[in-house]
Amino acid sequence: MTRTVIESKTKTVVIGFDEPFCVIGERINPTGRKKLAAELEAGNFETVEKDAREQVACGAMVLDVNSGAVFTNKMAEDPRYADNNFVEPPLMKELVTRVQSVVDVPLCIDSSVPGALENGLAAAEGRPLLNSVTGEEERLELVLPLVKKYNVPVVAISNDDTGISPDPEVRFAVAKKIVERAADFGIPAHDIVVDPLVMPIGAMGTAGQQVFTLVRRLRDELGVNTTCGASNISFGLPNRHGVNAAFLPMAIAAGMTSAIMNPVRKVEMEAIRAANFLMNHDANGAEWIRFARVAEAVEGGKSFAEASAEAAAGGRAGGRSGGRAGRRARA
Amino acid sequence: MTRTVIESKTKTVVIGFDEPFCVIGERINPTGRKKLAAELEAGNFETVEKDAREQVACGAMVLDVNSGAVFTNKMAEDPRYADNNFVEPPLMKELVTRVQSVVDVPLCIDSSVPGALENGLAAAEGRPLLNSVTGEEERLELVLPLVKKYNVPVVAISNDDTGISPDPEVRFAVAKKIVERAADFGIPAHDIVVDPLVMPIGAMGTAGQQVFTLVRRLRDELGVNTTCGASNISFGLPNRHGVNAAFLPMAIAAGMTSAIMNPVRKVEMEAIRAANFLMNHDANGAEWIRFARVAEAVEGGKSFAEASAEAAAGGRAGGRSGGRAGRRARA
Repeated sequence: MTRTVIESKTKTVVIGFDEPFCVIGERINPTGRKKLAAELEAGNFETVEKDAREQVACGAMVLDVNSGAVFTNKMAEDPRYADNNFVEPPLMKELVTRVQSVVDVPLCIDSSVPGALENGLAAAEGRPLLNSVTGEEERLELVLPLVKKYNVPVVAISNDDTGISPDPEVRFAVAKKIVERAADFGIPAHDIVVDPLVMPIGAMGTAGQQVFTLVRRLRDELGVNTTCGASNISFGLPNRHGVNAAFLPMAIAAGMTSAIMNPVRKVEMEAIRAANFLMNHDANGAEWIRFARVAEAVEGGKSFAEASAEAAAGGRAGGRSGGRAGRRARA
Repeated sequence: MTRTVIESKTKTVVIGFDEPFCVIGERINPTGRKKLAAELEAGNFETVEKDAREQVACGAMVLDVNSGAVFTNKMAEDPRYADNNFVEPPLMKELVTRVQSVVDVPLCIDSSVPGALENGLAAAEGRPLLNSVTGEEERLELVLPLVKKYNVPVVAISNDDTGISPDPEVRFAVAKKIVERAADFGIPAHDIVVDPLVMPIGAMGTAGQQVFTLVRRLRDELGVNTTCGASNISFGLPNRHGVNAAFLPMAIAAGMTSAIMNPVRKVEMEAIRAANFLMNHDANGAEWIRFARVAEAVEGGKSFAEASAEAAAGGRAGGRSGGRAGRRARA
């Protein structure tokens, strides 16, 4: 049984075929968030702390912490800031420390800079997830020793030195290569979480089925857990959340065990909670019934984040709201 | 390739593994709808005609027509009305005629009364779907000759004289028996649409996985299309539509090809449209983009039925609303 164990100082999260889907919150990431990048440049961690709290309240079980900021003002004054190897390592240390000071979930240390990965690993309490290694030779040689040294699990993205292949067979082969190379380092398959890469369905009609097939093969043939950047599937489309909310249950039914995603959206989180229940990973529907109360508060006009925070703060002790009378079952 | 062909006078719907999911509208059914039953008793078909139009506008591709009314007032005056063999045959004829007068989609003739089935088959133009036969000996002997005589496809519900088994192996065996018995009558497997029976997930934690496994087996081993009463899965639960909206894409990913359901609910129809796209059964996302405009009108305050009717009436000729700017794709 494949179990990827991730830990904070006090909490353990297991990614596995028989576990509820693991939601990895993606919000703490300055890439493409100019306002957040500017705050970080000014040494302001308010948004980071708010995003940490909010994502956990909304149901994130792990938080991704990405240090990929560009400090444009500092760069103008000091050319060293043009180098992410200079910017990210201290920033990652600070981010991890700040996030750990406000929430108790395990972290996912996310950077393309080895020094930032190492600083994140050193600062993180427990057993964080490392994000990421690819099939590129340089990345394999840089990242796998860190994975071994810190005894942590790692996200393996199935692209290599030739780029991202549109052919799922090639992406499977890249994943296989990473698992084999990891084994050479003494890293077991259950510590590799493969991202088979999700193409936008708007650009490639087979993108959905590719993922479903790949996830099943990765699980059956390599015995690995899987993850993805879930929102990629709907890139460029109108009504994106509707596509995401169907994609996630379908991927879960195919065997996908985690996703890096925005947990502060009700529609996607509702789809995941329902899928957990339908996979028999929610005993007696306890989590579903809890979620239904949040959904009811959202119907009543609250934001999902607000309703989730209230439920997390104490709503759980409140009385159970009555289930609506069901319609007569057919047949 | 399994293709179940259903026809009205002017339209053909194919249920198949490579076709968009077939939505069979369930609303025209007086069972459990007292107001509708009372209207039918009074010879008033306004709700029937409204439901027919509305379901088709919302995306129903086939309409189920169920004649199972109980005429309580007439029964008090004339004891013959206590017998559904007396009530349903003329009612079915009238229902089919009325529905055909307002919409042009194929019909699904639904009754437990053989005389009503035969009247429905006689009144329906084209090639309707018959609903249903079971594994019960009496039903097999009554219904299969009608299926043969009228050369129509039939819904086969996997219960038999021992009732509904909670064991999916037994339900598979019942479906297999029906397919074999049909073959004895010269009815091919592609004209059998099996309902594997969906148990409520609130009562049986394995209900979802049972269906996904059964659908796959029915397809791979018997080569048949499948259907279900989709809302059964969420019977008795709070926030039912959330469960339904995850169940449908998961069932579609497993190979389910149709459902008998309420198409006048946005959340379920959105899930199905997205799942069609993700299964590569929506070329270039044309249907999705059309649906996104309806979703936008619903966001703006319209009811789903209203927005769908407007889109069906001419909104398709309108300008395409701009897709929201997508977030940067991950990796």
